[in-house]
This record gives sequence, structure tokens and C-alpha cells, in this order.
Amino acid sequence: MKNTATLLIACPDRKGLVAAIANFLYTYNANILHADQHQDDDAELFLMRVEWDLEGFALDMGAFDAAFAPIAERFGMDWKLKLSARRPRMAIFVSKYDHCLVDLLHRWHTGELACDIPLVIANHDDCRRLAEFYGIPFYVIPVTRDNKQDAEAQQRQLLAEHHVDFIVLARYMQVLSSEFTAAWPKRVINIHHSFLPAFDGAKPYHRAHERGVKLIGATSHYVTEVLDDGPIIEQDVTRISHRDTVDDLIQKGRDLERIVLSRAVRWHLDHRVLVYGNKTVVFD
Amino acid sequence: MKNTATLLIACPDRKGLVAAIANFLYTYNANILHADQHQDDDAELFLMRVEWDLEGFALDMGAFDAAFAPIAERFGMDWKLKLSARRPRMAIFVSKYDHCLVDLLHRWHTGELACDIPLVIANHDDCRRLAEFYGIPFYVIPVTRDNKQDAEAQQRQLLAEHHVDFIVLARYMQVLSSEFTAAWPKRVINIHHSFLPAFDGAKPYHRAHERGVKLIGATSHYVTEVLDDGPIIEQDVTRISHRDTVDDLIQKGRDLERIVLSRAVRWHLDHRVLVYGNKTVVFD
Amino acid sequence: MKNTATLLIACPDRKGLVAAIANFLYTYNANILHADQHQDDDAELFLMRVEWDLEGFALDMGAFDAAFAPIAERFGMDWKLKLSARRPRMAIFVSKYDHCLVDLLHRWHTGELACDIPLVIANHDDCRRLAEFYGIPFYVIPVTRDNKQDAEAQQRQLLAEHHVDFIVLARYMQVLSSEFTAAWPKRVINIHHSFLPAFDGAKPYHRAHERGVKLIGATSHYVTEVLDDGPIIEQDVTRISHRDTVDDLIQKGRDLERIVLSRAVRWHLDHRVLVYGNKTVVFD
Amino acid sequence: MKNTATLLIACPDRKGLVAAIANFLYTYNANILHADQHQDDDAELFLMRVEWDLEGFALDMGAFDAAFAPIAERFGMDWKLKLSARRPRMAIFVSKYDHCLVDLLHRWHTGELACDIPLVIANHDDCRRLAEFYGIPFYVIPVTRDNKQDAEAQQRQLLAEHHVDFIVLARYMQVLSSEFTAAWPKRVINIHHSFLPAFDGAKPYHRAHERGVKLIGATSHYVTEVLDDGPIIEQDVTRISHRDTVDDLIQKGRDLERIVLSRAVRWHLDHRVLVYGNKTVVFD
Repeated sequence: MKNTATLLIACPDRKGLVAAIANFLYTYNANILHADQHQDDDAELFLMRVEWDLEGFALDMGAFDAAFAPIAERFGMDWKLKLSARRPRMAIFVSKYDHCLVDLLHRWHTGELACDIPLVIANHDDCRRLAEFYGIPFYVIPVTRDNKQDAEAQQRQLLAEHHVDFIVLARYMQVLSSEFTAAWPKRVINIHHSFLPAFDGAKPYHRAHERGVKLIGATSHYVTEVLDDGPIIEQDVTRISHRDTVDDLIQKGRDLERIVLSRAVRWHLDHRVLVYGNKTVVFD
Repeated sequence: MKNTATLLIACPDRKGLVAAIANFLYTYNANILHADQHQDDDAELFLMRVEWDLEGFALDMGAFDAAFAPIAERFGMDWKLKLSARRPRMAIFVSKYDHCLVDLLHRWHTGELACDIPLVIANHDDCRRLAEFYGIPFYVIPVTRDNKQDAEAQQRQLLAEHHVDFIVLARYMQVLSSEFTAAWPKRVINIHHSFLPAFDGAKPYHRAHERGVKLIGATSHYVTEVLDDGPIIEQDVTRISHRDTVDDLIQKGRDLERIVLSRAVRWHLDHRVLVYGNKTVVFD
Repeated sequence: MKNTATLLIACPDRKGLVAAIANFLYTYNANILHADQHQDDDAELFLMRVEWDLEGFALDMGAFDAAFAPIAERFGMDWKLKLSARRPRMAIFVSKYDHCLVDLLHRWHTGELACDIPLVIANHDDCRRLAEFYGIPFYVIPVTRDNKQDAEAQQRQLLAEHHVDFIVLARYMQVLSSEFTAAWPKRVINIHHSFLPAFDGAKPYHRAHERGVKLIGATSHYVTEVLDDGPIIEQDVTRISHRDTVDDLIQKGRDLERIVLSRAVRWHLDHRVLVYGNKTVVFD
Repeated sequence: MKNTATLLIACPDRKGLVAAIANFLYTYNANILHADQHQDDDAELFLMRVEWDLEGFALDMGAFDAAFAPIAERFGMDWKLKLSARRPRMAIFVSKYDHCLVDLLHRWHTGELACDIPLVIANHDDCRRLAEFYGIPFYVIPVTRDNKQDAEAQQRQLLAEHHVDFIVLARYMQVLSSEFTAAWPKRVINIHHSFLPAFDGAKPYHRAHERGVKLIGATSHYVTEVLDDGPIIEQDVTRISHRDTVDDLIQKGRDLERIVLSRAVRWHLDHRVLVYGNKTVVFD
């Protein structure tokens, strides 16, 4: 894999933006690998992702911030720099269902997900053997109605100790407190087993069956303090029929959940996702 | 096209049902072309569709009701008989948008929809030229806040005069009164421009854009007195991206609406749709 | 899970078939759970699948063949009886790629695939740890240009010893000899990584990339002696773009292969697949 | 609609390309609306599409070529400039089937296709009434085994007289000669009723039915002198089952053909399609 840098930029849309960024990179002899931009006309916002090869790039990355600051200031940019050499550290939260976990761990194992997984945190012991098969430390922190605050404190302690960058809720069946989500903004990815905003909340497959819909869906989104309401990263659907029982929906839905969650995680890891307002841009 | 009869049956699930129906048909030498059945275990309901060739069928169809009555009674069947020789009479309601109308009329013209279309009823004059191109009488009945009751009376008068069997709302932008829908149960097919139950009601594309969903949908359903809540016949979705404006959604949605509505209408015409509770079975 | 019997029938289409079968089952008080039939008008063939609950069925299954023989004979039926109590025994063949294997084993582990897996046979050692994680005996039989006949003899010996009913080639990279495929007709399921008949043979993703197609596919089929030409059980596709390299196609293709193969295996296990000529009927 | 210019560029990949283009546009105060680029690593090619608002652009478009020439020369660019104010002139060729024609004309009528349609050329009279409903001149040039050369001469004469920019073959059932296709490179868009490269040539639906595929497709491509082999612009598929007869495939295929062809035409009109080698880039 190439040693690259990726710049994610959001700022008010103004003329000269692209030229300023392109010139800056050209000055240091960057070989641009991918560049993609988007203007949101309603929000008058300019959003950009540019990735370049660090081979031959004539600026030391330690000096990047200082060198780029004048441009960023001139255009009022909200920006982030991501280096491919710095592998993000991803924690996975699970409960009893293991279908998303098995999928994420296998993809990670084959190199499809370019990250480290320092730990899996669960509120049940069921998935331990699986995590350990892939050599990932597995921590059980039971959560009850009464100990939630305490359990979350333990979770956050573990996350800090393991220098976790972001969290994936792989069918983790507990709702995080607003304190938790506020402390991890745009850094917790959830999979919800419906085509949001339809069937938000509990038992979406049961409700889909009851309503008689002809397709079921799954939605991966960043977690905010409003349940199932955060910025959507990816969604997909699959066809069902009158022959499908609730159990059939659950089974078909597992495939959807796996695919949708894994896409969202991969795009997040590739620094393709830019959140603005309550929406995302997913750069190609 | 073959001269066929189709029997649609719903009744409590009991042993011997299939044998009773198959024997009845065999007695009269029926050549069964299609047979499909479904058991809804929750509702303990048996649902069946069977279609046979009338060529060589040894029972006069005028005598069918009397001959079948004993079986229907024994099993407590709710049943309907449909003869392919009797083409259903379909009325189309439109407003200004013509994309669903142009699609339905072309399909009808090519023989894809086996029905007669005695009239198009509109609340605006825009689609007149199109309807008349296909030789369909076009009636304009303006609807305002104040004349709704009167307008519906005129509509129902026209429907009665033209012996209409069912109505297709091809992006008709008026909500029918509950008197109207009660008078036409399971006989009014609507197309709603969202993936129901998400974005029911007004301006679904605007709301989909605002929510930042990654797919938009369309839903065809029978109209009941609760808006956008009737039994769903067909749904489909298409992928969108952050680049799509509301206008793009509207344009992409037009293709969805056409496809979804035309499938629902065709299945209705083929007597494939059986409504039970607030759901449908669509037999293959 | 219910204790059921499934009857799969193929025979020349004739009147009275459905009545004869329904009466037979009713005579023994069968509670029919699913029944589906299909007529192929070109081939003048009648194909049927009927599943019933054995609870309360008044015929001992040991006596079924004798009881059903007169009907089967009268209509010239090719028929099979499958009992849910008798779990099929499935062997999996693999090489180095483990993505289909990991998927099949996890589905089996969660109960989605109702079969026993007595062994995995590989021509490389790579997947051993995975198979053993799920407690499946793993045999390595290397295959070279020179030892193919001998290797297949060992494989067939193992299959016989383990009483295997059917084989799944989970990206097994060796072509089976025609002696092998002739000995296992309609009992070897393969996954080919293209939308057949496009790109049959070697390196389909490379050729898809070269041709500039906009969708890639995967096909699961029964193996016959003509490579990639057997009866198709299931196919699906996924969208790609000019941005996708061959490696991206390979990665996106893995998801397709898993989904398509697992559907084919599940339908085979549910006795939903009926082969006739070089085609399949997959009953709903 | 905005008054815009679009630049399509293909050239060897080199550093400084994006900066040079961005600076050039910024010099003249361009407001960039969309910019998208792609590097083909195998071909070492840089491909770009950039669209800007001409409102406030400080360079007269008559002087554009001279101003841009030095940059184009320096980087060895193959480039085209497209002005939204200059509506492309599209000819449609048809035979007897009208489903693609009715779709294209309706989209054109609603403003979805930003082009002029100076004429429809047919080898049968069947579609005359439809073309004339939309006010499009309709010319019939019969084509037989013997008069092909002469017929094409008449067609090309008409195209020249009407200043046609590109041609859409809307299920036109004649194969164009290689003289014709050579004279109209990358300017003839065809719809083929299969998922190419599967089932190229005649009767694809019949062959799909015979092979027992589970999905059928349609492909829109630029016409080259090799039949069904030109650069693919768009493809899509739809699911079929064993219940579908050849006639059902033909009917389901009509919907696919319409959708796929209309997308290809719209992208061509939006100057989103860049052909290189035997492939296309379709910019988002």
C-alpha cells in the first residue's frame, strides 16, 4: 500500500479555493492520487477530499500544519489531515449477536480494513471465543438498568487506555448515554436494522413485517444523542415477500447489516466520509 | 392470449383445502395453468390463487357459483372469480404531472395492461392532449378547498356511468375523502413517492434530501381512509448521493414511480394481489 | 423446527396431477405447509414441490414409497422425498481463499444451514485453523498436474467414508475431472466469480475490468463436465465504476460470491431446487 | 438553468496538472461548479471534467481556445470544451418497437434531456404518429439487403442537412456499416438488450431464457465497427425467475432498455462521458 496523506476540507464556498489548494500541493511536488469536491449550494459550503502520494512530497509532515495554516485561515477552513501510515485504532462493541463481529474481524484479517483493533468490549460473554480466535482482547462489562453510568465509565477508561480513535457498534444492544455520545462525536458508528427514518427504535423487523413492506433495509450512521437520528453513512435494502416470517426477515437482514456496516467502516477508515450538519458526504 | 379463469381464495387454514379445490377443478376437466398458495401462520389463514384454461373446462361459467358454493361454504371461503375474457375497466386520475400517465397509457397501448380505460379524470387540463393521443376521453373536474364534496360527486357519477372497476391515482395531488375511499375499498391504487412508512405525507423528496438518506423509494398501495397507510402492493428504491439536489431526486423518483405503479397495476389486473388485514399477498 | 417431509416431482404435464397428489396427502391427513408448482410449456413438463408437517401424518414414512408408487407410475413421475429429520451431509472443498468458507461455516454455526459438515477438503493448508475453529475435520490433498487422478481418488474415498451427500466448491481452484462430475451429478455446487455466461473460465475480474463493464457478477451453479456451464441456481451483480481497480473488483466480488453461494446452498438444503434440462426451478 | 462551460481533458498523468488548470480558471475568475478527475494507473492517463459558471467569467469564450492552448500543449492534452448554451442536436433511429422512443421523447419534452431533436429516422413507418405528436419530423428510409449502401447515404445526407451532433439507436434493428460507424466515432449510442459481453448479437432474450440465467440485462454503448463491442456507458439488470417466458423477458427487458438508454443519453448530453481505449469514464 502506498504511503499517502489525505486532506479533508470544509469551508464557505469561494472562488480560488481549488487553485489555492492545488498550488500549495504542487509547490511541494505532490503527486495527487485522488481529488474530489462537492459544493452544497443550500449551505454555501465547499467540501473537498484530496489524497496524494508522500513519496517525493517535499514537505516534512511535521511541518504541514504550519505550512498549510495561512491558506486554511484565509478561506476559513475546517480541515483534517490523515496519514495512511497512522493506522486508526478501532474498538468494537458487541452484545450476543456475532454476525457483524465475525464479518468485521474477517475483513480486518484479510487486510480489507486498514486499522488496528486493540479490543472488543461486550456486555455478554458470548463472542469471546470468536474475538480471541483473531487474537483480539475481549472485555466483558455487564450493563444493567442500575449500573449504566458505572459501566460506561469503565468502557471509557478502557477506550482511553487503548488509545481508541473510533468505535463500531456491531449490533451492541445498549443505548449509549448522551454524555458518552457527546464525548465521542462523529466517532461512533452504529448499524440500525431498518431503512431509517422508517422503523427507528426497537424491533424494526417485527414492525416491518406487521406493516407489510416489500423491502427491508439497514442503515449505518454516526451516533448522536438522538436515537437513530445521526448522520447516515450508508443504507441498503433487500426484497422480501409475503412468504417471509419475522425470522426470515431477521436472517435476510443479517446479510444487509454486515454489508452496510462494513462499507461504512471502510469508508470511515479511508477518510471518505465528511459530516456536515446532520448529513454526510461520502467521497468516491 | 388464453381464455382463463382465476380463483382467489382466503379462508381459515384447514386440512383438505387443496384436495377439495383440486378435485373440484379436476371433476370439470380443468387444465391448471398456475396455482400458488400461502399460509399466514399468525393469522391462521389460507390464501390461494389458481388459474386454469377454460378450453375444455366442462362447467359453464354461468353455473360456476352454484357449483362451487358447497365447497366455499364448507371451508368458510372468501372468494372471487375472475375471467380473462372480462377486461377490467380502469379509470386514471391525474393532476399536472404526466410521467405516470404517459407510462400507463403506453403500456396499455402495447397490450402490457389487459384492461379498458374508459376515461381519465383530472383536476387540471394539462394532460388532455396526451390522453386524447391515445383516444381516451378526458374529463376535467377542478377541485378547490370549497368544492371537494361536489367535485367528488361528479367524479363518482362519471365512474358509475363508465362502469369503472378500479381507479389508479397517477400522481393525483388531491386527497380523497373517506366517503370516497370507503365506497371504493381495495379498488383505488395510489403511488406515493417515498419508501413508506418513511416520509408519508407531503414533500417526501424534500424531506429525504433534508434527512440525508442514501436511497429514495416509491410505494404503490391500495388507498384507505388513513393517508399513505393502506396495504402495500409494491415498493422499490434507487440510490442517490450527496451530489443530488432535490430536483435530481424528483427526476430520479419519476422513474421509480413509473416502474412501481405499473407493476402494481399489472399485478392487480392479473388478479395476483390478495388483500388481507392491512397487507397484501402478491402471488408469483 | 418442524418435522416435515418434502416431495419434489417432475413429470409430463397432465390433467389431474394436482388433484391426485393433494388427495393422496389428504388421505393420510397431511397438513400441507407449502406447495408450489410450475409448468414449463416448452418442455411440457410439470414440476412441483410440496412440504407437509409429519405431525399427525397417518402414513409411516417407511411405507411411503410403496404407497406413493401407483400415483408416481400413473403419471410417469421423477420424484424425490426429503425428510427434514435427515440432515444432509455437506463437504466443502477449498483452496487458499477463505472468504466463502468463513461465511458458510458461520451460517452453519448459527443454524442458518440445516446440514452436517463432516469434513473440509483442501489442496492447501491455509484454511485449517478456520475449519478447526468450528470443529470440522480438515484434510489436505495436494493436487498437481501429475497426481490429479490419484488426488481425486483420495477425495472420493473420503467422501464415501464420510457419507457425504453433496459438495460445495467454496472457491476451490481446481477443475474436477469429468469422471468426478459424472459420479456426482447435480450434487456439486460451484461459485463462479462472474455473471455467467459472460467471462466463463479464468480470471473473470481481470477480463471484466478490461472490457469496462459497469456491473460485476457471481454465479452459483451445479457442476457438469462442461466448465462453468451447468444449471444456474443463483446469480447477482454489484455496481462498479471506472475508479475500481482489479483489486477493488476482487474485493467487491468477495461479498457477491459469499451471498450468491450461500443462497444456492440454502435453497439446495431446503430442497427448493429442481434441475431439469440444463436449467433449475427454484421454488419460493 | 445556469450558463456554464465544461472542459473534458485526457492526457498523460503528470504533476502540476490540477494546479495549472485551476490557476487558469481562477485567473479568469471562474466559479467552479463541479470538478472531477480520474487517474488510470495502468494507462498512466489523467482524465478530468470541470464545469464552471460563465456568469462573471472574465474570458470571452471566442478567445478560450487561444488562451488555453499553451496549457493544453504543455501537458499534451486531448480536450473538448462544451457550452451549455449550445444545445446538442440528437437524431433518433428507430424501427418498429417504440418503447425507447416514447421514453426519450417524453424525457425531452419534460426538459430532462437538454438537446434539440431535429429528426427521427426509421426504416418502418410505425412510429410516425408518436414522433409527430411531439412535433419531430419523421423520415422513413426502408433498408433491405440490397439497398443498404444507398439507404445509409440518404441517412447521412439527412444528418448533415440537420446538423446532427450525435445519433441514438433506439432499438434500431439494422446493423450500421463500418463506413457509417467510422464516420461517426463516439457519436452513435446504442442500446443492446443483454448484459454484455453475455449474449451479444441476435435474440439475446431467447438465449438468456435457454441458458436459464436468473437476471437479464441491458447495455448502452458507443457503436464501433465491431458489433456490440464498443465502449460501455451504462448497464443494468433485473431479476427473472423460472416462471418468466421469453415474452416476459422481453417485457421486463423493455423497462431496462428504457432506463439504461436514457441514462446513457443524459450523461452524454451532460458531457460526463469520456471515452478512452475501449472504455468510458462516467464522471459523477
